[in-house]
Amino acid sequence: MLANLLIAHGGGPTSVINASLYGVITEAKKYPEIEKVYGAVGGSSGMLTENFIDLKEISDEEILKLLKTPASALGTSRFPLYEKEYERILEVFEKYNIKWLLFNGGNGSMDTCGKIYEIAKDKGIGVVGIPKTIDNDIFTTDHAPGYGSAARFIAQTVKEIGEDVKSLPIHVSVVEAMGRNAGWITAASALARKKEGDAPHLIYLPERPFNEEEFLEDVQKLHEKYGGVVVAVSEGLKNDKGEPVAPPIFRTERAIYTGDVGTHLATLVVKNLGIKARSEKPGIAGRASIMNQSPVDVNEAVEAGKVALQSVLEGKTGVMVGVKRISTDPYQCETILIPIKEVMMGEKIMPDEFINERGNDVTDEFVKWARPLIGGELTDFADFNLGVRKEKI
Amino acid sequence: MLANLLIAHGGGPTSVINASLYGVITEAKKYPEIEKVYGAVGGSSGMLTENFIDLKEISDEEILKLLKTPASALGTSRFPLYEKEYERILEVFEKYNIKWLLFNGGNGSMDTCGKIYEIAKDKGIGVVGIPKTIDNDIFTTDHAPGYGSAARFIAQTVKEIGEDVKSLPIHVSVVEAMGRNAGWITAASALARKKEGDAPHLIYLPERPFNEEEFLEDVQKLHEKYGGVVVAVSEGLKNDKGEPVAPPIFRTERAIYTGDVGTHLATLVVKNLGIKARSEKPGIAGRASIMNQSPVDVNEAVEAGKVALQSVLEGKTGVMVGVKRISTDPYQCETILIPIKEVMMGEKIMPDEFINERGNDVTDEFVKWARPLIGGELTDFADFNLGVRKEKI
Repeated sequence: MLANLLIAHGGGPTSVINASLYGVITEAKKYPEIEKVYGAVGGSSGMLTENFIDLKEISDEEILKLLKTPASALGTSRFPLYEKEYERILEVFEKYNIKWLLFNGGNGSMDTCGKIYEIAKDKGIGVVGIPKTIDNDIFTTDHAPGYGSAARFIAQTVKEIGEDVKSLPIHVSVVEAMGRNAGWITAASALARKKEGDAPHLIYLPERPFNEEEFLEDVQKLHEKYGGVVVAVSEGLKNDKGEPVAPPIFRTERAIYTGDVGTHLATLVVKNLGIKARSEKPGIAGRASIMNQSPVDVNEAVEAGKVALQSVLEGKTGVMVGVKRISTDPYQCETILIPIKEVMMGEKIMPDEFINERGNDVTDEFVKWARPLIGGELTDFADFNLGVRKEKI
Repeated sequence: MLANLLIAHGGGPTSVINASLYGVITEAKKYPEIEKVYGAVGGSSGMLTENFIDLKEISDEEILKLLKTPASALGTSRFPLYEKEYERILEVFEKYNIKWLLFNGGNGSMDTCGKIYEIAKDKGIGVVGIPKTIDNDIFTTDHAPGYGSAARFIAQTVKEIGEDVKSLPIHVSVVEAMGRNAGWITAASALARKKEGDAPHLIYLPERPFNEEEFLEDVQKLHEKYGGVVVAVSEGLKNDKGEPVAPPIFRTERAIYTGDVGTHLATLVVKNLGIKARSEKPGIAGRASIMNQSPVDVNEAVEAGKVALQSVLEGKTGVMVGVKRISTDPYQCETILIPIKEVMMGEKIMPDEFINERGNDVTDEFVKWARPLIGGELTDFADFNLGVRKEKI
């Protein structure tokens, strides 16, 4: 009997969430029992307002472009559903004869996904989650689509900034990366290094309280040793009271707006050490860069979409597609299904063994773990071995 | 009679200054009258301290990598020479039997170059400048190597950020681009547009005083119309008194440190309009991106290096290699030699015909002028024509 599939995106996009959509659509076309493949426009909002497009009607040429399109081609939403809205969703499913739901998102979306599963399971509706996160904070999976590309972006960018700073060794550059509670993206800047002395020279993560005194001490020493210093820092860096390190700019009723932590750290360097410092904040450019997509990440994103589609058709439900690492060298992973209930239990932060003792760098163990995810070596730059130059400032 | 060539880099790097170096080295190898090709390590500092490397000794493999290496492989310097140091440079030239000097840099470097030419011309030493700038502010040349790639970077980045903001249309993103006095880079963000409504929606340049009231009015209207709004702004944006728009953070004896203008504009939006806003500042990542090199720019950079080498050997001196545009469609330029004295006369800012009347965008004329420099179309993204979504916030 014919029925329809619905796919929705939730949360902030990644540079490969559309690759998962590509996987879902191309796989769905193989199954005649799926009549329509609906895309919810604007995530859960689109589900409530019945704002659907039929993805089988989109041209093959346009579908192919999904592999190289950042953001979400369906549109996404950041807002959790209210309790009463779940019932409404069931009505919509009935109205549109939707038997299968695929929900592609991060922790918040998996939460929504789990709740829909609970109310929909007695109606014979299958619900499968497709993970997506740049932050790599989804529980129970080794990593998730989106992270490898965000990691490649920050590694490439910090490597390039490192060259720039080295060629003009008169300053400190603080590069701010996304990540409020988990430092995975910032940590991946370590993949920029090839030999001792390469950028980044310091890495600060939200998993460790920031110590201003040690930071200034470290910058001073590194500046004497290398001239230019590159610091990678997570936007969510906190002090030992758990408060944001950057001072608040102003408050509204709903939120406190804090300054940029990169700017704050650069200012600390100028003020306290008298060393010229600046900051860079690629911001959302870091999750939308097509040039820096990791090929491994793209493939895994497509695969996650395909497996989710196959699984839901096979009657699997209440699960999220996850990745289990079999081996790091050579890199080998297998796709697994994880009960969404388990996914909903937490947020994955960096484990202790991936952070060094002083809390200003990652460990080799992390680098080994992360290296395969960026999908191949970064461009090798010319190096004339000029040594460290001291220049009049 | 055998003699030696010296090449030096000056000022902030671009993503193709090493491509010009590639052009110089590969061309120099063809001329047996050049015994050594010295590279000054760290720009003019290297010239003073006799810190030279022999570039003929570098392996071909390493030289080839220069085409894909950002920053300066020789190292550069930001400081103008003192009067007394020019005499010292002549001594160094004599000591090392340097008959030819190529100086690759921007306005400051061309100034140095012109002064060295003046004191060296009676000694039979040839001096030729190779232009380099991301800012495109070098006088008398249509454009200069470095700009096309910085332009491509900002266009690609703003296009990607535009997709992100569109897919989650609940905010305003202000993207800050480099450029203290000239808005050429920021202006190039307009190349991201393909159809009406595409990002960037507003462009602010240092050539026009910023009007806060009009800015807020424009953002409000565009937010109602499109949901997400992307604003491109030059770091050097000024008010009608010629002061930086962003407030000063603190002062030292030598300099005033101002806040980031992108952050400032985003804060204005949140405070005055109650619309969620954020900022992105790629900063020096925008001049070091190898992924976003413009192929046209790379070719022109190599060519500038080759022509400089050929010219100085032919006895041309006191000139800079420049570009004269023959035609825009099809794009055709020829290499010319410009007396350095003329180059030293000014700084090139955006002409009136490239800026719209309200001062919040560029004109079609600018877009036509700039389009060929980025070296081919940007990636075409999938577009499901979802229309404008209004979402609960």
